[in-house]
Amino acid sequence: MSQSEPDEAMVARVQASLERQGMMATLGVELISVERGRVRMALRHDERFTQQHGFLHAGAVASVLDSACGYAAYSVMPPEASVLTVTYTVNLLAPAAGQRFTMTGQVVRAGRTLVVCRGEAFADGADRPFAAMQATMTALYDRPGMSG
Amino acid sequence: MSQSEPDEAMVARVQASLERQGMMATLGVELISVERGRVRMALRHDERFTQQHGFLHAGAVASVLDSACGYAAYSVMPPEASVLTVTYTVNLLAPAAGQRFTMTGQVVRAGRTLVVCRGEAFADGADRPFAAMQATMTALYDRPGMSG
Amino acid sequence: MSQSEPDEAMVARVQASLERQGMMATLGVELISVERGRVRMALRHDERFTQQHGFLHAGAVASVLDSACGYAAYSVMPPEASVLTVTYTVNLLAPAAGQRFTMTGQVVRAGRTLVVCRGEAFADGADRPFAAMQATMTALYDRPGMSG
Amino acid sequence: MSQSEPDEAMVARVQASLERQGMMATLGVELISVERGRVRMALRHDERFTQQHGFLHAGAVASVLDSACGYAAYSVMPPEASVLTVTYTVNLLAPAAGQRFTMTGQVVRAGRTLVVCRGEAFADGADRPFAAMQATMTALYDRPGMSG
Repeated sequence: MSQSEPDEAMVARVQASLERQGMMATLGVELISVERGRVRMALRHDERFTQQHGFLHAGAVASVLDSACGYAAYSVMPPEASVLTVTYTVNLLAPAAGQRFTMTGQVVRAGRTLVVCRGEAFADGADRPFAAMQATMTALYDRPGMSG
Repeated sequence: MSQSEPDEAMVARVQASLERQGMMATLGVELISVERGRVRMALRHDERFTQQHGFLHAGAVASVLDSACGYAAYSVMPPEASVLTVTYTVNLLAPAAGQRFTMTGQVVRAGRTLVVCRGEAFADGADRPFAAMQATMTALYDRPGMSG
Repeated sequence: MSQSEPDEAMVARVQASLERQGMMATLGVELISVERGRVRMALRHDERFTQQHGFLHAGAVASVLDSACGYAAYSVMPPEASVLTVTYTVNLLAPAAGQRFTMTGQVVRAGRTLVVCRGEAFADGADRPFAAMQATMTALYDRPGMSG
Repeated sequence: MSQSEPDEAMVARVQASLERQGMMATLGVELISVERGRVRMALRHDERFTQQHGFLHAGAVASVLDSACGYAAYSVMPPEASVLTVTYTVNLLAPAAGQRFTMTGQVVRAGRTLVVCRGEAFADGADRPFAAMQATMTALYDRPGMSG
């Protein structure tokens, strides 16, 4: 949506918002790259976030996919907007087996307030995703005290 | 699906599986009640699991809704089955504003291997949900080393 | 959202919009009832709308569920709004086997522009649904030439 | 999943199943191409399948996306399997405005019984999709009287 903001300002905006997310800090998420409409993050296996079979919990996987999609959407929004998740669908295609997981979020199409994104999660060096997301994000304006 | 297992054994089966989930322990999830086809859990607000505006992160909300739905499905599966999430859709209807959040998971219909559930999340004493989930769970059999 | 519009005007508004849907006329959809936040429709088995095994096609089922959810949302919107589907998730729980199918759409929660609904489809006199939907609708304002 | 079946036999299998779908014939769907894991179909604007604003109804769009995804999944299943839709999520990114719509279905990952696909719908010569789907299909075996 926004074209006039320099890329560096946009990247700084994404980083500042991400740093306010207690959840991402707790999960130990690493921001790999931010381009307009495309964000990559990484998450490491951690016993604190496992499900009953010892794999990473779907909730941890979905949280990071949701953030990757949310920031991909945020990266194409005007600087004064905030971003919120409206809804997402996640498919768990295989157990999250591995040590390091890479999550990508990518804008499919950005409307005036709604932005639809797709996310994919990859284990270690795999080229097939073990999880896939389709997410709907919304831009919020004029919410005092709310930013990012 | 299973009718002959005593309710106490089923409840113990759910509790045992839940206790193996590092993620649920880390989130501090409390199991409120387990009936056949219906599970209720609670989660408290915690700064470790917030999003950028200070509310509980959608990922934490969805993780517990997913578990409530998963255990609702598991409660109607034969004792020898394991349960895995195939896919879910979550709608975030309002920010997770409050101190204590109650999540319910309920079976809509159980097939031979696939069980479809619905989940709802309520803040404090609210009677309208702030999040809603539709989830597809699968029963797994004969997976050595995998239980619950 | 709207409280001051008489119920009769709201019902007439839903009927007028439905009558403009070529798709609903082609499917032969019957409007059973309209309450604020809740709409029921019926669809009959028809060989023109079957899938490869002779059951009603998921697309026909989902179309009517989508309309039932859309009009449930529309029934709580201000009279000047138009309604559009943002996204929906549908689970096909069993084949659409039967002669007459009843679809219900119900508002879960209505926000300023987004309204989240749930839908269920029942075959003949069954009390368990054979399909379930979770849908996100949006209210549109000030779109010249667009109504309903 | 299947590797030994000749491509011609697989394509014939998809066509034969598609021809048994009354819904696809009624909608006037054209099969553009079938590769293993990827199917393309086309649909023309038709007043019989419109919504209240005169655009193609989301239900018609979703029906063809669902079929494109279903046959993409079917194309990688063993010849003796039948395919059924478990669940799908569709995002309507813009109105279906145009004369001819191209729908693609593509396999994201195929498991033993569940196959996850993504679909996209394009109007006329557009390069951005106006609808996006994420779908879960299942392979069925040993169902007497059911094929395709």
